[in-house]
Amino acid sequence: MNPQDVPEPPVAPWHPPSYTVDRHGKVAGARPRRANNWGRWGADDQKGTANLVTDDTVRAAAATVRTGRRYPLGLPIGGPPTGAVPRAMVVRTATTADGVVAPTTAHPAYSDDLLIMGTQTYTQLDGLAHVADRDTLYNGYWSGLVTAAGGARRLGIHHLIDGIVGRGVLVDVARHLGVPVVPPGTVIGPALLDAVLRATGTAVGPGDVLLVRTGVLGSWDGVAGSLGTSPQAGLDVSCVPWLARHDVSLVGADNSAVEALDATAGSWRIPLHLAALRDLGLLLAELLCLDELADACAADGVWEFMFVTLPLPLVGGVGSPINPLAIR
Amino acid sequence: MNPQDVPEPPVAPWHPPSYTVDRHGKVAGARPRRANNWGRWGADDQKGTANLVTDDTVRAAAATVRTGRRYPLGLPIGGPPTGAVPRAMVVRTATTADGVVAPTTAHPAYSDDLLIMGTQTYTQLDGLAHVADRDTLYNGYWSGLVTAAGGARRLGIHHLIDGIVGRGVLVDVARHLGVPVVPPGTVIGPALLDAVLRATGTAVGPGDVLLVRTGVLGSWDGVAGSLGTSPQAGLDVSCVPWLARHDVSLVGADNSAVEALDATAGSWRIPLHLAALRDLGLLLAELLCLDELADACAADGVWEFMFVTLPLPLVGGVGSPINPLAIR
Amino acid sequence: MNPQDVPEPPVAPWHPPSYTVDRHGKVAGARPRRANNWGRWGADDQKGTANLVTDDTVRAAAATVRTGRRYPLGLPIGGPPTGAVPRAMVVRTATTADGVVAPTTAHPAYSDDLLIMGTQTYTQLDGLAHVADRDTLYNGYWSGLVTAAGGARRLGIHHLIDGIVGRGVLVDVARHLGVPVVPPGTVIGPALLDAVLRATGTAVGPGDVLLVRTGVLGSWDGVAGSLGTSPQAGLDVSCVPWLARHDVSLVGADNSAVEALDATAGSWRIPLHLAALRDLGLLLAELLCLDELADACAADGVWEFMFVTLPLPLVGGVGSPINPLAIR
Amino acid sequence: MNPQDVPEPPVAPWHPPSYTVDRHGKVAGARPRRANNWGRWGADDQKGTANLVTDDTVRAAAATVRTGRRYPLGLPIGGPPTGAVPRAMVVRTATTADGVVAPTTAHPAYSDDLLIMGTQTYTQLDGLAHVADRDTLYNGYWSGLVTAAGGARRLGIHHLIDGIVGRGVLVDVARHLGVPVVPPGTVIGPALLDAVLRATGTAVGPGDVLLVRTGVLGSWDGVAGSLGTSPQAGLDVSCVPWLARHDVSLVGADNSAVEALDATAGSWRIPLHLAALRDLGLLLAELLCLDELADACAADGVWEFMFVTLPLPLVGGVGSPINPLAIR
Repeated sequence: MNPQDVPEPPVAPWHPPSYTVDRHGKVAGARPRRANNWGRWGADDQKGTANLVTDDTVRAAAATVRTGRRYPLGLPIGGPPTGAVPRAMVVRTATTADGVVAPTTAHPAYSDDLLIMGTQTYTQLDGLAHVADRDTLYNGYWSGLVTAAGGARRLGIHHLIDGIVGRGVLVDVARHLGVPVVPPGTVIGPALLDAVLRATGTAVGPGDVLLVRTGVLGSWDGVAGSLGTSPQAGLDVSCVPWLARHDVSLVGADNSAVEALDATAGSWRIPLHLAALRDLGLLLAELLCLDELADACAADGVWEFMFVTLPLPLVGGVGSPINPLAIR
Repeated sequence: MNPQDVPEPPVAPWHPPSYTVDRHGKVAGARPRRANNWGRWGADDQKGTANLVTDDTVRAAAATVRTGRRYPLGLPIGGPPTGAVPRAMVVRTATTADGVVAPTTAHPAYSDDLLIMGTQTYTQLDGLAHVADRDTLYNGYWSGLVTAAGGARRLGIHHLIDGIVGRGVLVDVARHLGVPVVPPGTVIGPALLDAVLRATGTAVGPGDVLLVRTGVLGSWDGVAGSLGTSPQAGLDVSCVPWLARHDVSLVGADNSAVEALDATAGSWRIPLHLAALRDLGLLLAELLCLDELADACAADGVWEFMFVTLPLPLVGGVGSPINPLAIR
Repeated sequence: MNPQDVPEPPVAPWHPPSYTVDRHGKVAGARPRRANNWGRWGADDQKGTANLVTDDTVRAAAATVRTGRRYPLGLPIGGPPTGAVPRAMVVRTATTADGVVAPTTAHPAYSDDLLIMGTQTYTQLDGLAHVADRDTLYNGYWSGLVTAAGGARRLGIHHLIDGIVGRGVLVDVARHLGVPVVPPGTVIGPALLDAVLRATGTAVGPGDVLLVRTGVLGSWDGVAGSLGTSPQAGLDVSCVPWLARHDVSLVGADNSAVEALDATAGSWRIPLHLAALRDLGLLLAELLCLDELADACAADGVWEFMFVTLPLPLVGGVGSPINPLAIR
Repeated sequence: MNPQDVPEPPVAPWHPPSYTVDRHGKVAGARPRRANNWGRWGADDQKGTANLVTDDTVRAAAATVRTGRRYPLGLPIGGPPTGAVPRAMVVRTATTADGVVAPTTAHPAYSDDLLIMGTQTYTQLDGLAHVADRDTLYNGYWSGLVTAAGGARRLGIHHLIDGIVGRGVLVDVARHLGVPVVPPGTVIGPALLDAVLRATGTAVGPGDVLLVRTGVLGSWDGVAGSLGTSPQAGLDVSCVPWLARHDVSLVGADNSAVEALDATAGSWRIPLHLAALRDLGLLLAELLCLDELADACAADGVWEFMFVTLPLPLVGGVGSPINPLAIR
């Protein structure tokens, strides 16, 4: 190891883009794909499918509660990391043990923590500023609005301060296929979603929260680096029109990216992210713990529940760690 | 400013404590105050009043939802700080703007954040490892179990992974007294709580979540340092037996510490914290935004609602930022 | 405080720049100002005036040591902050006190810290990727090379891994003017620099480190927010040709920005930064503690010394906290 | 992965220690081992062997500079990590690329970093509060003085604000033995140190800085986790009296812990740390890059040089990242 031997990162030619950005922060002339919600809730909408959560859908969601049993869907933070690089630290800035060694007991002893974590690690909600395609974000906002110093000047996750509450529906693909974990490469498309829903006699409607179980997280051995963005089963990009047609407010899964991650090394492709977040404004929840919930649903044959997730209202943030809850 | 002129912190004599700690991490012979829940849910209980949240109380809480209207109770994070020292930063580790200046568009552009914040800043939940009295925590656990390297070896906030869900009751003391903000020094004791509840025709029962509105946060001018631990109205320590008798699962307020902070400079006293967290195992939620919720309750005279808070399940953590939700 | 009342940051129209960037990461056709070092040490130079530090100048610097007395020039970190927002935290991740409360003594007790700080806070070295002018950095590199995800792909501070070592010369402007602190608005231009050097019989030559004392830091009352970027005496931009002509390797001062900060609210102007860092590749050291060193120089009339600063070799970093040393 | 399946950390009985602590923060009756410097520089000394750096030794160190050639000894930070868990992050809080996408150019574009790193990772200086033995630190200070909330109330690394400057002597054990890397298990004791010094005709005296080259860092393959605290060659604890007798101000090496780390899994033993830091107050520098320096020394047969290291003056800190410099 020679201290001067730090490799230079590659640089390459750059040509300025040909578009302009208007005074609303929109890329002039930008167009979404066919399935999209641009403009549906106003030209300045920043909430996307969170708009599908209405008083009516919330009330209906609460009405699905029958037993009152809760199923937390979040990974313990500080438990198994989700990739090669641990990205969460909880550091103590004071401890009650300090009080044991304090010379006086004039003040009560207390503990305090400092949390340092990637907002998109462990169980997480992807906000609408998370991914861009052809330099545009949801609703036509320019990807250049998300900067190091300014954060997300539009589409910040704090717009989701009132959370996502909805009737949740679990689609247990692994159980339907009779496998502990859906193998990478399996196409989870609209036909398979429909087949599982038909088999469980469950319908999905506007504002609902769709949760898809692949078995990936539950069968993970917990070895750092073995999950991350390894090849995993997940939704195929062909689900996008289906998701749009069913008008779900959020789609979540027990894998790294909701969508399938393929095996081709180096080809990091996330077409469903782009279509969902950018075109539909559809929120994504990743690395959900769905096994216990699935067992309960299978036991009584009821695959719907009240779903609640309350992201941290980080001003200008692009995502949030979450600990969603299902109540049956 | 002379670089060597760093003052030496004071040190003082220390004598070892006279107690011993048993193999369960309990201080031998430790006793709680009269109103307490030690042992009530088992000698090894680590959840305190979260045990009062049962399937039945959750089901009943969901049944209070009438309109489906949501009221988020969390402060935006990165908005006005809560004290002299800002303790939350959201830092971007990648931005979609990076994509605008990227030489190629081989990969989709994405944004990512790193969150750095005190877990007990902004709207927050105090966990049971947060404060100690006479070297003991809730249920007799030793305060020495919370260390810098080990975190909270018992009573970590991850034990609250299934959140607090309950029938919430708002006690709007400021409105009852006809003031925008209850002045510091006002005693908010059991009599005043009962008076407000009587006036609104509302009862509080086992597992309920009690929220107390003082007007402190709503009348705060947002100037850093002006809130913090300044003198503020809050619950008087005489409320403790009342809280124990009513068996609430959580008590929250729109001020810094739930309890009253008095004006005597330097005398940082938090007797209700000690009695609630250590003796009762009663969870505390601080810096709640209650004004909108209060207006809605006053408008239709219904002061109950479904309350949900989902702390981050930080393993060995002593608190969590929260964004609680009331659903009416 | 209403949780939804987070103001939207302004956005504005944007037109793409008219330039292109070549395969070396340079802005095509970019030109520096008249006084500049672009190309002087090669088209791909990333060290700027650090190139003026040679074996010969280092040897000559060591030869200035006469007494061996050391003068540390760095602010204690965690002492008085340098602006409104404290930007340094030292957090313990383990403490030897943990050992006092450890049940066994199988392992030695140890302490560990986590440092969280802005690299350009407290006493600091500005690297060559720190400021851009008309989208170019030193040597014509494009400002777009410094991104959130990639850091400084060129001109990273790790290129200064062998530090700046040189013959230091102190120009004590405050003492020369007979004031404890040079008042804001005072023009410290070439004539004044020459006058002080003449009065002290000192010359400045190639590779030397020029330190300018204004009294600003020494007269600061330590109140957070009172220093920061408040109006302060400092070098006038007219010094740039003088600095270029004398070929100094680094210029430092006991104020926030080396250069003068004027009183006009809101008009954050740093012309000397732009000319020094971007055109000359001249390194800047800020918030140096110069009072003790100045007293020693005044006492014996010798205003030269060996200067050493060793920035942290942060790969792709744009600055570093430093604790420079003068040895007389 | 079941969210509730977080294992409980073990707890164990605890008995209070039998000692008391006096008003100076000293453990009553504590005794160092035979080779020690307790009291040598006063009962309240907090600098240990940094006291051996005097005006005379600094002047003599400067006099060793012959060529002016510099050899940086610090690992690039953000280059290969030093253990299984990367513990340094440099995060951008502003980038000049932000300026490219800024709607106006009213303000100059600038970049800023936030540094997050363990102070005892990468090339590092162990401060005197780093390790304790039998609840005592150097000079008899109580290990309980280093707490989460208070940091190091005594022996903080800011006491080393004027750095360690000295005549450095390189003992190249690997080269002497004719191996690229000294194998784990090799005893590097006083006899071997003396043999190398004799072979190179070099003496070590009071205030000198002793650097020992094992080849460990240079032969490391850079794979995360492969260095850390794996079995490594290093100084044997039998060197302690030798180090005391030669009165060196600092001892450093190109391995993880200066001392040998043995192969016995789970038996984390650091006897030289305890004797050096706690008894002698002798500073340790770890993970130094010594290969280039060694090649230069071997080429001309001169094994002495000027050594400078300037730790960050972290108030109450227990260590510091460093980038030491050797000047030949």
